Amino acid sequence: MNQEHLKEDLIIIKISGNIIDDEARLENFLKELAAVKGNKILVHGGGVMATQLAKELGIEQKMIEGRRITDKDTLKIVTMVYAGYINKKIVALLQANQSNAMGLTGADGNSIKAHKRKNANLDYGFAGDVDEVNVELFQQLLGNNIMPVIAPITHDGQGQLLNTNADTVAQEIARSLSKNFNVQLVYIFEKPGVLHDAEDESTVIANLHYSYYQQLKIKGLIFAGMIPKLDNAFAALNSGVQKITIGSANNLSLVLEGKAGTTILKDE
Amino acid sequence: MNQEHLKEDLIIIKISGNIIDDEARLENFLKELAAVKGNKILVHGGGVMATQLAKELGIEQKMIEGRRITDKDTLKIVTMVYAGYINKKIVALLQANQSNAMGLTGADGNSIKAHKRKNANLDYGFAGDVDEVNVELFQQLLGNNIMPVIAPITHDGQGQLLNTNADTVAQEIARSLSKNFNVQLVYIFEKPGVLHDAEDESTVIANLHYSYYQQLKIKGLIFAGMIPKLDNAFAALNSGVQKITIGSANNLSLVLEGKAGTTILKDE
Repeated sequence: MNQEHLKEDLIIIKISGNIIDDEARLENFLKELAAVKGNKILVHGGGVMATQLAKELGIEQKMIEGRRITDKDTLKIVTMVYAGYINKKIVALLQANQSNAMGLTGADGNSIKAHKRKNANLDYGFAGDVDEVNVELFQQLLGNNIMPVIAPITHDGQGQLLNTNADTVAQEIARSLSKNFNVQLVYIFEKPGVLHDAEDESTVIANLHYSYYQQLKIKGLIFAGMIPKLDNAFAALNSGVQKITIGSANNLSLVLEGKAGTTILKDE
Repeated sequence: MNQEHLKEDLIIIKISGNIIDDEARLENFLKELAAVKGNKILVHGGGVMATQLAKELGIEQKMIEGRRITDKDTLKIVTMVYAGYINKKIVALLQANQSNAMGLTGADGNSIKAHKRKNANLDYGFAGDVDEVNVELFQQLLGNNIMPVIAPITHDGQGQLLNTNADTVAQEIARSLSKNFNVQLVYIFEKPGVLHDAEDESTVIANLHYSYYQQLKIKGLIFAGMIPKLDNAFAALNSGVQKITIGSANNLSLVLEGKAGTTILKDE
């Protein structure tokens, strides 16, 4: 008998900032998510609010190679916006849809431990790279029919909060929990899936195998912003995650069933 | 056999804003709290940061009879500051002291349900009065050796977050959990206890009985700011909470043992 069949299913959904910024879309998405049965974990990104708040407060945002450098003031802002405003807004909306959500950062219940990123050439500030996901805690919460809602803030166990990429958080949770669950990792963003032509939403690639992805990358046919997401997705697939899908917030249930969006596949 | 003896002990501690604003004091206090054994819940207030942030963002703070009126922008700010910045800072510091803390608002796990305060004469805005504490959730968390750390934000179950007085939150949790635990409710603030003379910290009233409190109140010998706190404390005592103490952050263990601070007592 296959061990995989004894495991319960778990859906881990990462939503990107664009959905968070669009109030009506977020509400519709959370309503649909609340209706999905079974074990679920939601991971959310940031959206424009942190940048706007920093601007209003006159805090300069340092970007290096497309990454935000998290200095002390920026960490304060992302903690307020991600773990405070956005996380609690999402949790309250899920509760309104009879879904028993609970918002967590990596510090809460020691759910995700990380270390401050070290780089000899570049100081990323308070950016965290994940060391450990607290599998037992997630199992307890899911076992009590609670849906963890994760803000992309981790901690180092020494009292320091750290800003961590939300895609990475979702992937690390998926990887760690894949030992105990059949995990489907779902990236939800503003496009209907991975597109052949970034300008044409009808060109969704339904099934994206690793070798084909490599070809598209070499030919420059993958939009730059998608590359870290897809690299992460293939890495997760190679480390135990059973299924990965990328799709739009507008039709969550179809994406979950693999009837919309892009399914990421290992080579056969 | 007395039923009370079968219950486990639970300490519920409310810390006021003054302690949160003083970084070194907060760190020392949390270190001492982490060392206290057994079931614990921490409830924290707000401090000056929300007011400062509102000022920096040019959001006018409306106060009526000493109460902050929570309009939409103010709710956003207190959610960011209380549930985001302060709550996560406290949780990370407790984790650094090997105490498995988990930060929650009333929306998280539906821990505290409230309704928007109704008043025909005065619109308090998004201020919440508590309806229900989720006893089962707190029992589960405490049973898993987790210390809940509660930010004074509740929800109405319809998707609306609400700003709620932290003293009231502590009292409502204490009252609800006193059915299942022997609850000691502890208010920690900047003074060493309830004082005979507000100017002289050596005049701590060690034991404050209800009838004596009434006398002091009539004579105008209780500092105005203490009255709601003490009224709340006596109400909690009359609704099942076993023990209430008020004391300073500087000597938590002595306050917990009743060797410092003020113990609130029913009349004999």
